[in-house]
Amino acid sequence: MPVLTILGNNSAIPAFGRNPTAQVLQAGEEAYLIDCGEGTQSQLSKYKVKRNHINRIFISHLHGDHYFGLIGLLTSMSLLGRVHDMHLHAPALLQPIIQLQLDAADTRLGYQLYFHALTTEGEIANDKRMIISSFKVQHRIDCWGFLFKEKRNPRSIDALKAKAFEIPEAYYGELQKGKDYTTKKGTTIPNKEVTKAASNAKIYAYCADTIFDPSIAEKIKNADLVYHETTYLKDLEERAASRFHCTTVQAGTIAKLANAKKLIIGHFSSKYEALDDFLLQTKAVFENTELALEGVCFKY
Amino acid sequence: MPVLTILGNNSAIPAFGRNPTAQVLQAGEEAYLIDCGEGTQSQLSKYKVKRNHINRIFISHLHGDHYFGLIGLLTSMSLLGRVHDMHLHAPALLQPIIQLQLDAADTRLGYQLYFHALTTEGEIANDKRMIISSFKVQHRIDCWGFLFKEKRNPRSIDALKAKAFEIPEAYYGELQKGKDYTTKKGTTIPNKEVTKAASNAKIYAYCADTIFDPSIAEKIKNADLVYHETTYLKDLEERAASRFHCTTVQAGTIAKLANAKKLIIGHFSSKYEALDDFLLQTKAVFENTELALEGVCFKY
Repeated sequence: MPVLTILGNNSAIPAFGRNPTAQVLQAGEEAYLIDCGEGTQSQLSKYKVKRNHINRIFISHLHGDHYFGLIGLLTSMSLLGRVHDMHLHAPALLQPIIQLQLDAADTRLGYQLYFHALTTEGEIANDKRMIISSFKVQHRIDCWGFLFKEKRNPRSIDALKAKAFEIPEAYYGELQKGKDYTTKKGTTIPNKEVTKAASNAKIYAYCADTIFDPSIAEKIKNADLVYHETTYLKDLEERAASRFHCTTVQAGTIAKLANAKKLIIGHFSSKYEALDDFLLQTKAVFENTELALEGVCFKY
Repeated sequence: MPVLTILGNNSAIPAFGRNPTAQVLQAGEEAYLIDCGEGTQSQLSKYKVKRNHINRIFISHLHGDHYFGLIGLLTSMSLLGRVHDMHLHAPALLQPIIQLQLDAADTRLGYQLYFHALTTEGEIANDKRMIISSFKVQHRIDCWGFLFKEKRNPRSIDALKAKAFEIPEAYYGELQKGKDYTTKKGTTIPNKEVTKAASNAKIYAYCADTIFDPSIAEKIKNADLVYHETTYLKDLEERAASRFHCTTVQAGTIAKLANAKKLIIGHFSSKYEALDDFLLQTKAVFENTELALEGVCFKY
């Protein structure tokens, strides 16, 4: 079961003890960092996230509250002895920004950093347990959402029964794919006798910073968990639009249109200290909503 | 009386709740930020330092633990409505790093940022109460220390006495400079009769990151307060030298050679959790030493 941990949920500037945007998605041994506002490396320590499991980082766009913590994290990982590869998926301009800072410090990272520029929608990574794709969202600058689709898990084998039927271990791979087994004597052992169906493959959709855009709903259709920004409460719809952001009601509407199972909201404007109204207003549109509070882990 | 507030004292990476290097020096209405590690803007909020009083920022060198918090602070100041000028004194390469990040975000600061590249030793700023000069230190990359010299304060006028002698207010400026007053009748009123000497002009020396270099002592001679790095305890003198850093004993030696009044030490390696030995070892060489602990204000 994948777990999403919130490391930051504030927009623009740190305020009221809230840090700028960062999240970690963990699926087994694989972990993904999604956006990396200033202070993310300290947040990772605070919430005891093993940074060595993070092998891919996704940066949605180059507003500072989504990436100013990245260069510190990358260099600290090196100082802490990281040697295995890191993959960074981000708008192309981030590459020279990182390179210039490494050059200025006369520093070489102790590991290989592969930069993958976000240019078109579609699959951008295919790992052991996850397929990740990017989708375009409308913001003031080039900005991307990310879809994390679990791979369909293989069926799990009941080893005792499989042995009882004398099925050779070499055939287990076929069993996991759902195939029946035929014995030397010609008897067919139905797959269901010796395997169990795996849990459903889950989908997490990270919608980044975006203006209200119903076409997003189609891109994140049926997601189990959706993160959508709610920079403002519903009375500031006009301001939200002018700044390419969304309100509570708009986020709830997207989740509803997408037939999402659960919605988490964040990227709160620093003008708000209390967050109660964000939850109330969004729940009025989409009941299964929670605040993306720092340190909270969402299992989905 | 100037006040130095410590915002961060750790080297390389944040650890044990210690933030990377940043300090604020306040003298009356003028405030100076010295280095700006990641998280400095949050530290300013935490310790209630009025960021609007900061009109100059000094960056010693371009290792990340000394400036990764700068871009976040500069953009946050703009978002919070700053309109008055900011002066940034730093190695030249910092200018394109900042510009590239502003360009990537399609952002213009709401205030004028004047960039002053550090190129030669000597005076770099002359403000109402302070003259600031830079001096070269030996580090792995281009690195600068800063000397903050209070201007000699004017003599303070005893207004009651000055009135009793019928000295016109227009002449008070001359009195403050130490001049005597001659009445219309030709009587000389000695300056000392109507003024008091001001307190001594104080000197703060920030020695940045440096290898052990006794020539620094000459540059910071007789400083009232010296900040010198102690990245390592005395047993790691060799490692310190190889990384262009200093030990406790070396920092104490510099303060002694400089005839400093007080020494504060910081930039502790993340390998150390407890700091007691830093204080003990340095005090053994230079008694009037204190740890540069976060949140502590040093009046000097």
